[in-house]
Amino acid sequence: MTQPAAVPVGAAVSAVRQASLREHNLALVLRQIAAADRPPSRAGLAAATGLTRATVSALVDDLIAGRLLTEVAPTPRSGAGRPAVGLTLAGHGPAGLGLEINVDYLAAVLVDLAGTVRHRAVRRVDLRPVPPVEALALVGDLITEAGAEADRQDLTLAGTALAVPGLVTATGLVRLAPNLGWRDVDVPALLGTHPGLGGRGLGVDNEANLAALGELHAAPPGSANFIYISGEVGIGAGIVLHGTLFRGARGWSGEIGHVPVHPEGRPCRCGGRGCLEQYAGQEAILARAGLTDPAAVDAGRADSPPTAPVPGAAVTRLVAAATRDEPAAERALVEAATALGVAVAGVINLLDVDTVVLGGVYAPLARWLAPTVEAEIRRRVLTAAWSPVTVRPALLGGDAAALGAAGSVVRTVLEHPARWLGRPSR
Amino acid sequence: MTQPAAVPVGAAVSAVRQASLREHNLALVLRQIAAADRPPSRAGLAAATGLTRATVSALVDDLIAGRLLTEVAPTPRSGAGRPAVGLTLAGHGPAGLGLEINVDYLAAVLVDLAGTVRHRAVRRVDLRPVPPVEALALVGDLITEAGAEADRQDLTLAGTALAVPGLVTATGLVRLAPNLGWRDVDVPALLGTHPGLGGRGLGVDNEANLAALGELHAAPPGSANFIYISGEVGIGAGIVLHGTLFRGARGWSGEIGHVPVHPEGRPCRCGGRGCLEQYAGQEAILARAGLTDPAAVDAGRADSPPTAPVPGAAVTRLVAAATRDEPAAERALVEAATALGVAVAGVINLLDVDTVVLGGVYAPLARWLAPTVEAEIRRRVLTAAWSPVTVRPALLGGDAAALGAAGSVVRTVLEHPARWLGRPSR
Repeated sequence: MTQPAAVPVGAAVSAVRQASLREHNLALVLRQIAAADRPPSRAGLAAATGLTRATVSALVDDLIAGRLLTEVAPTPRSGAGRPAVGLTLAGHGPAGLGLEINVDYLAAVLVDLAGTVRHRAVRRVDLRPVPPVEALALVGDLITEAGAEADRQDLTLAGTALAVPGLVTATGLVRLAPNLGWRDVDVPALLGTHPGLGGRGLGVDNEANLAALGELHAAPPGSANFIYISGEVGIGAGIVLHGTLFRGARGWSGEIGHVPVHPEGRPCRCGGRGCLEQYAGQEAILARAGLTDPAAVDAGRADSPPTAPVPGAAVTRLVAAATRDEPAAERALVEAATALGVAVAGVINLLDVDTVVLGGVYAPLARWLAPTVEAEIRRRVLTAAWSPVTVRPALLGGDAAALGAAGSVVRTVLEHPARWLGRPSR
Repeated sequence: MTQPAAVPVGAAVSAVRQASLREHNLALVLRQIAAADRPPSRAGLAAATGLTRATVSALVDDLIAGRLLTEVAPTPRSGAGRPAVGLTLAGHGPAGLGLEINVDYLAAVLVDLAGTVRHRAVRRVDLRPVPPVEALALVGDLITEAGAEADRQDLTLAGTALAVPGLVTATGLVRLAPNLGWRDVDVPALLGTHPGLGGRGLGVDNEANLAALGELHAAPPGSANFIYISGEVGIGAGIVLHGTLFRGARGWSGEIGHVPVHPEGRPCRCGGRGCLEQYAGQEAILARAGLTDPAAVDAGRADSPPTAPVPGAAVTRLVAAATRDEPAAERALVEAATALGVAVAGVINLLDVDTVVLGGVYAPLARWLAPTVEAEIRRRVLTAAWSPVTVRPALLGGDAAALGAAGSVVRTVLEHPARWLGRPSR
């Protein structure tokens, strides 16, 4: 039983030190500006926060000097007096670098404080035959490239996070990434000292978790309970409950790819049998659709411009075949969606989430997958009749995890601006 | 994005009103006493809470007058001075009444503030052919009986909670209890005005949720992430994450009985197919074991003394058959445990709970079920090799849900003693 001590009233006050009060107020001003529909003025911020105008001005000056805010041209107003200068999040200050290493691609995105993607790279490469050290060297190339791009655009790297399709400890050790064939790969030790990281270290997290965080922040407010399913060669899930990513007791939540859907069915790489991945993973779908020729996996370099990346060639061909109503493609998608629906029905019966987000390669395939998933939910979820469940494609594209990773860096700056302002200069 | 206003420091202080400060300190003193190894003295409480001795004495006097605390004989001590009077939770004050209605039994327990069971009744009766109004009338008889017992033992009913094996809304409406055949039964409207409730109303909750709460409070500290599986005619689960019962987005979590384990398998009462309940529910196990003759379900009244209730006769016979290594019983238990293990492996892959608690009829059968459940976990859970999962029988017996219900009433009194002290007298 917890036993909070009775805090004498005076002590509570003296505990609010000036430094932490300033930290709190810096973040408060920044949040107001981030959430505002139009750039607020200093006077507007004072009114909204309850702080004095002098305090607001001092805080804003610090935030401008630290390149977190920019002044924008005043918008004319109807009332009397000179129009006030507006404030917005800086587009030239700190930026977050998000990276993803997956089975058949690498991705990098650079996101500024306002959430704008400033640089984007996707490299299609089959990493299964590539040892971890070499795969991470390819990620290092993406870091170098993104760093050059940040310099060119007058951005400062505030931090870097890497998404990995596997089980990652709090220190960034990849315990297991079955589809990459990785086991106990110490990513920070291998990549954390890359010069492009600017000495700021490297966060590592599960790709479905980061993609779910990206989705949470891209979705409209109120999207508080959902399962984000990341369909790739493997299938992962990020579970958002009450607006918070649920990581499990030890950080291993969301392994929906290994939920048994046919207990004595196909053997799985994990050692189990009948795992969802064997019926609804990208390779299983492509094989069933007859699209597994070697040309289906692009090799080498195929960087895309800073727009959302397109799926791999094989998935593109599957979408084309489904669009043409080709029976093999349709059968493959129905089989995958049925298995997905069985696993998802179990999830909903257990967790009562109200939304299923189809991410990764499932996003472009959602048009064909969703109806069957929804039918399985109607058939199998006890409460489906009166508590409807929404099945929808992800808002973010194939680099959702990289976007979520970059976003997590940016949000840390926004939530703790004092740390950014007080950082050692380069 | 949430936007907490900047609270001037003075306002935070003035907001701590005297009344709420007293409420806070009453609960603080009570928590200290509840958590103490031996009855603390007033001086000890002052030292532990940081409150003055005068304040502690005034609070303790109020709590004694309100029958929440009792003074106990001082324990001799080695040092100088007169030994101090100790304080314990009262055994004669408020008590919580917990009730359970299940498919083949009713249960009632009366629990005092110290957590001692003061009255216990179990009535075996097949409620499937009984309309809800009549079933609730039988529950009413248990309320009357418990009320008489409370009077006899000088206890005051602080509140009543009823566990139901179904989907219950926040207002106590049972939306669906498939195995009872209930749909949209407004329990508070039908039973909430029973004179035995003392006008304090009736809380209604899902039985697996209440049993999980009972288990959480009976288990040693640190039991923060587990799934409590309540095996009865139906199978429910209470999911405890980070020490808190997880209810889902809309209150419908934990329906593990309808997780598909053989997607195109046996049809289920819910309309789905291959639900866990069809392979591991009590009836499925008994049928497979050849123990489904009518005599297997006791009828009529079989109240037990205030010790943990024994399972129904059919389950007792199953335990006996398994103890004798009878092949039919063994086969039935392995089949059930395999299905249970498949569903549980899915749960662990998704939620990464570290403990599986076998409750309800699974508790006396755990000796036979656990090894197979554990084998399925080892086989199917991605992280099982380095993040072991404990499978164990529930600490509480067949009336775990009633105990959890009574406990929830008692905890409310302990957490909000001011409400109890300020209640209108009868």
